[in-house]
Amino acid sequence: MPSILTIAFDADDTLWHSESIFEETHGRLRALLAPWVESEALDRTLLDTEGRNLKTFGYGVKGFTLSMIETAIDLTEGRIPAADIRTILDLGKAMMDHPVELLDGVVETLDALAPEAEAGRIRLMVVTKGDLFHQESKVARSGLAERFERIEIVAEKDEATYRRILQRSGTAPENFLMIGNSMRSDILPVLDLGGRAVHIPYRITWAHEEVSRPDIAPPGFYTLETIREVPGLVARLAG
Amino acid sequence: MPSILTIAFDADDTLWHSESIFEETHGRLRALLAPWVESEALDRTLLDTEGRNLKTFGYGVKGFTLSMIETAIDLTEGRIPAADIRTILDLGKAMMDHPVELLDGVVETLDALAPEAEAGRIRLMVVTKGDLFHQESKVARSGLAERFERIEIVAEKDEATYRRILQRSGTAPENFLMIGNSMRSDILPVLDLGGRAVHIPYRITWAHEEVSRPDIAPPGFYTLETIREVPGLVARLAG
Repeated sequence: MPSILTIAFDADDTLWHSESIFEETHGRLRALLAPWVESEALDRTLLDTEGRNLKTFGYGVKGFTLSMIETAIDLTEGRIPAADIRTILDLGKAMMDHPVELLDGVVETLDALAPEAEAGRIRLMVVTKGDLFHQESKVARSGLAERFERIEIVAEKDEATYRRILQRSGTAPENFLMIGNSMRSDILPVLDLGGRAVHIPYRITWAHEEVSRPDIAPPGFYTLETIREVPGLVARLAG
Repeated sequence: MPSILTIAFDADDTLWHSESIFEETHGRLRALLAPWVESEALDRTLLDTEGRNLKTFGYGVKGFTLSMIETAIDLTEGRIPAADIRTILDLGKAMMDHPVELLDGVVETLDALAPEAEAGRIRLMVVTKGDLFHQESKVARSGLAERFERIEIVAEKDEATYRRILQRSGTAPENFLMIGNSMRSDILPVLDLGGRAVHIPYRITWAHEEVSRPDIAPPGFYTLETIREVPGLVARLAG
């Protein structure tokens, strides 16, 4: 019996836009705080605050919103009016409610993979990190839920998490192909486990996800320009 | 082959205290806002704000913290100083970092069930609702993770969610026993699916979880005073 390839897609910035929404909101925060704070100091402090709060809040928009509020109060030494904090809160709500915008080529790629999945020659899943409620809401609004056999929403994408996902889905590492935009979360832990991974960079990388890329491509590591190239790669890997 | 009973525990206010931490924080918010707002108006507006924000934020401490900030700004008509908002933010962080305090009798109950679970005659799992990051952190800090075969963290505990959990864990509804403090989340959807459910009331019920109890006990519905009575019930059900 031939082994079945399980293809797992990251969601934020792989299936749909996410970092661009953070960037846009960050821009609005800069404008709101312009009377008090220079952009550079804001950017630096917001990033520090986010990083420090990760261990308390985890990933996602709600923690980011709380970090924006904290940054605004601290940088203005408490001089920011409550009305402006209310504006930041509304920026956070708008991020939560933001329409899900698929990346170019996603639907066509899933269309191209569908016949193989329906024939049981490949399995398709999503592995996404962050806020459970928000990710479920985005999955539902994306219209893509039916395309995937499993959707795994996890708090952290590390080796232990991927090991658990492989166990739960009955997948051997050599039959697992992870596709995503983050070297740190989508690529390195999967390669360490003996799986294969496809890096498709997004226009922007959140500083907390940045790691240096390996100098030499390790076995099982692929880089693609766009998700549209995935069906071709899958055909080669299966062939 | 005898069918194996799968026993699923709710976590917040069933395995460990949670609502009491919300209550304590709520009390501190009352004190902080006392110069501007009467307790009754605060309680009412906070509950309204939480309810309205549930569809944007989902359950959990981070959404609650954002709702506290929103309530404070709106009720003071923006007159609250930013420093006080910073205090509310810190109340939220303290909730996230609050030590996990097990309910009385939890360890003894799990000890009593352990031999049955080890012998494969019952299966133990957790089904808990809320913030993925916070719940995972509480599971880890509870020291109970190793006691359970599966831990399911979900965004909403409705019939569709329980159906998915039963499917994923290969459990027939008649072999599923859910134990928890919320009629709305732990009991009614499980009974509707044809499972059995044990209600163990907690000292406080969050108003959003309150539903009227059925007048007549439906089949498969049990009420216990304390988790300590669970092993006895399980023995009767298995016997």
